[in-house]
Amino acid sequence: MASKPSIPKGTRDFSPAEVAKRQYIIQTIKSNFEKFGFQPIETPSFENSETLMGKYGEEGDRLIFKILNSGEYLKDVPLEFLEYKQEKAITPKISEKALRYDLTVPFARYVVQHQNEIEFPFKRYQIQPVWRADRPQKGRFREFFQCDADVVGSKSLWQEVELVQLYDTVFSSLGLNGVTVKINNRKILSGIAEVIGASDKLIDFTVALDKLDKIGEDGVKKEMIEKGISEEAIVKVQPLFNFTGSISEKIEKLSQLLATSEEGMKGVEELRFICDNVANLGLTTAILDLDVTLARGLNYYTGAIFEVAAPKGVAMGSIGGGGRYDDLTGIFGLKNMSGVGISFGLDRIYLVIEELGLFPETVTESSKALFINYGDAEAFYALQAIKNLRASGIKVELYPDKAKVGKQFQYADKRNIPFAVIVGGEEMSSNTFSLKNLVSGEQISVDFEALREALI
Amino acid sequence: MASKPSIPKGTRDFSPAEVAKRQYIIQTIKSNFEKFGFQPIETPSFENSETLMGKYGEEGDRLIFKILNSGEYLKDVPLEFLEYKQEKAITPKISEKALRYDLTVPFARYVVQHQNEIEFPFKRYQIQPVWRADRPQKGRFREFFQCDADVVGSKSLWQEVELVQLYDTVFSSLGLNGVTVKINNRKILSGIAEVIGASDKLIDFTVALDKLDKIGEDGVKKEMIEKGISEEAIVKVQPLFNFTGSISEKIEKLSQLLATSEEGMKGVEELRFICDNVANLGLTTAILDLDVTLARGLNYYTGAIFEVAAPKGVAMGSIGGGGRYDDLTGIFGLKNMSGVGISFGLDRIYLVIEELGLFPETVTESSKALFINYGDAEAFYALQAIKNLRASGIKVELYPDKAKVGKQFQYADKRNIPFAVIVGGEEMSSNTFSLKNLVSGEQISVDFEALREALI
Repeated sequence: MASKPSIPKGTRDFSPAEVAKRQYIIQTIKSNFEKFGFQPIETPSFENSETLMGKYGEEGDRLIFKILNSGEYLKDVPLEFLEYKQEKAITPKISEKALRYDLTVPFARYVVQHQNEIEFPFKRYQIQPVWRADRPQKGRFREFFQCDADVVGSKSLWQEVELVQLYDTVFSSLGLNGVTVKINNRKILSGIAEVIGASDKLIDFTVALDKLDKIGEDGVKKEMIEKGISEEAIVKVQPLFNFTGSISEKIEKLSQLLATSEEGMKGVEELRFICDNVANLGLTTAILDLDVTLARGLNYYTGAIFEVAAPKGVAMGSIGGGGRYDDLTGIFGLKNMSGVGISFGLDRIYLVIEELGLFPETVTESSKALFINYGDAEAFYALQAIKNLRASGIKVELYPDKAKVGKQFQYADKRNIPFAVIVGGEEMSSNTFSLKNLVSGEQISVDFEALREALI
Repeated sequence: MASKPSIPKGTRDFSPAEVAKRQYIIQTIKSNFEKFGFQPIETPSFENSETLMGKYGEEGDRLIFKILNSGEYLKDVPLEFLEYKQEKAITPKISEKALRYDLTVPFARYVVQHQNEIEFPFKRYQIQPVWRADRPQKGRFREFFQCDADVVGSKSLWQEVELVQLYDTVFSSLGLNGVTVKINNRKILSGIAEVIGASDKLIDFTVALDKLDKIGEDGVKKEMIEKGISEEAIVKVQPLFNFTGSISEKIEKLSQLLATSEEGMKGVEELRFICDNVANLGLTTAILDLDVTLARGLNYYTGAIFEVAAPKGVAMGSIGGGGRYDDLTGIFGLKNMSGVGISFGLDRIYLVIEELGLFPETVTESSKALFINYGDAEAFYALQAIKNLRASGIKVELYPDKAKVGKQFQYADKRNIPFAVIVGGEEMSSNTFSLKNLVSGEQISVDFEALREALI
């Protein structure tokens, strides 16, 4: 191979500093998941194709990475399929496995497969990579991590209350203060559809309404009419064009607007329960807001819908989302299993924390000290100390070669190692160490105990 | 889907308890890697096929999972290839990417690709899954984690000394006392081949010699002769048939046996340096032993070869291995980059720890207490306490539904949650909590501070 090797488009190598920062976020999410009673599971990277295919719509099927069978994989493929290059008919015959596309379908599969071992309600979290053959673009990758927490087997709205708290706790722990947790409810959307008398236009309606800030009331109405929503319907939902105020005020407006819709009123009640309890329990730094344009995964969710926006002033799409789906495991034959869950967008959270300079400096700290190597006798003396320092949990290392001292110091500098320990004949005979602070340049002579104290 | 869903053969779901135990091992390995100055990198799950193909021999190529291109992937495949179902010619045309087969080749690729950003010597660790289309069998999986630590860019033998210490530290930290770190050297093997005058018979020779314990000296010699090794040669290496004693004694025997082989004597010197320094620095619980039959990855390693055996009495293959390879990155065009590294066998280590009952009980502990749900008012009161307990880092949860109390206690029991907290009207009016120890059955009334103290 003559040219420099590369990696597939849409994938990434992570350097030590990047892994450390990602791990900092993942650890924070993980420890809070566990504080909230969620337990980890892991599923295989690839599933049987039949488990995944048909679960994400036609577009999803196309974006699933398929794994080629091994051996004589064409053996049972009819010749005519091959002659006419009928990929659609051939693919299922030459590929039985596919890479995980999200964590929700494998979770549903897991719940059904292991239903007899699981105690319900089952609070699980899962932090694993997923793969999508999307066209790579800025901030969109073909391999990325999902961080999901879901509860399955309970319809209690206290879960929704706790999930809002969980968002608040995680983002506050990350120093990402002031995120907005937007909430909506599928039943509210159904109510609106009933009121405007056009359930098939619901998406068009919410998409247009979402542009209120950008194109103004007239612009939105114009777009709605273009999309075939009647003027009469638009008049009926006039309050949505001035949908401001506190959450309580918004809920009050909705309860008037949706008074004729049984489904809509049920959504109002759910929202009220969740929002009241969240308000009474209090949030640390996050803000809860009701957003009736929120319609993510519309066909999927049946109750609450969540989405998290980065703190004001940071231009970034949603950094989290989730909701309730009343029939999570039905696709695999287990009925009446209500689920509710939230997800954290690792890559975007990373970008926001980076932009705001919120990664603690210690996150990327590697070794605390580099022992300079002056030769084998000195190296042995150094390694005795290194062994004891490591036993105290201190990260230290020996420069492996007896290289020029300048080169060794340069190495410490480039690696951002804050201290160098110099061990020559003098130190060995007096049983001491010369500890040099590579930031201040200060150098002191210390015994082992003082060295340990300085580095701990 | 009528039947219960399943997962592909050779793959595994991990339950919460299994994930917790695996994480305990991974965390121990990781924290010790970092104490020794290794830094984490991560590479994509799939690489360009050309990066992987041809690097693991013909058998390896066959076992690499290939990813099917998307879209009209047959477009550029010549019709005649298809008509004759020539998989070998077709595969490279319909699959451009393949799943990682190990962590070493991607690491070599990473080093070459990022050589200008890396400070050498580069001490990296990597803990990620790899995939092999092996025939699944007991203890062998198609998806499994590798845990590798390597140093690239230094020929210093101090690395080998430190890697033996690293094995000792990790296994001692895991409570896995008394593992044997077997060491050998490729140059010793070359020396033996020189002495027996048959370098092409070296593998046959070591394989036969390895059976000494089982089939005795006569049996081994018989097998060697059958494999075409001359009686004269066998006489020359007679000391290897009584290769006992301390490491120093073994090294002494080797230095006599290999006196005529320059290469062999270089191996003796390397072994002496490593073993002497390891002995002088001391090991916590591991035992270092010289095993001249150790020949893993013969074509790969150029210096030290390591393999770790489980503590005596546990029937398990090697739980770790590694060695030095003088030309790690040559395959990608970067010459003269010596590397040395070791690997930990996560799955086998798990089985050994399980067999010896060494997982700490706390590893699988989930929530510390379950708050019993008596209704919305009580649940709200409970959640206020829960919020404050979580802020103190305590894992607690509310049973989400107002279910029968017996059912809720049963849930706590099955989840191994050690405490239940009961909150009824009485507790609410006196601002207290009834804390029930689910192991002893003892129940006490406490205020919040005492509750916190009891659960922390």
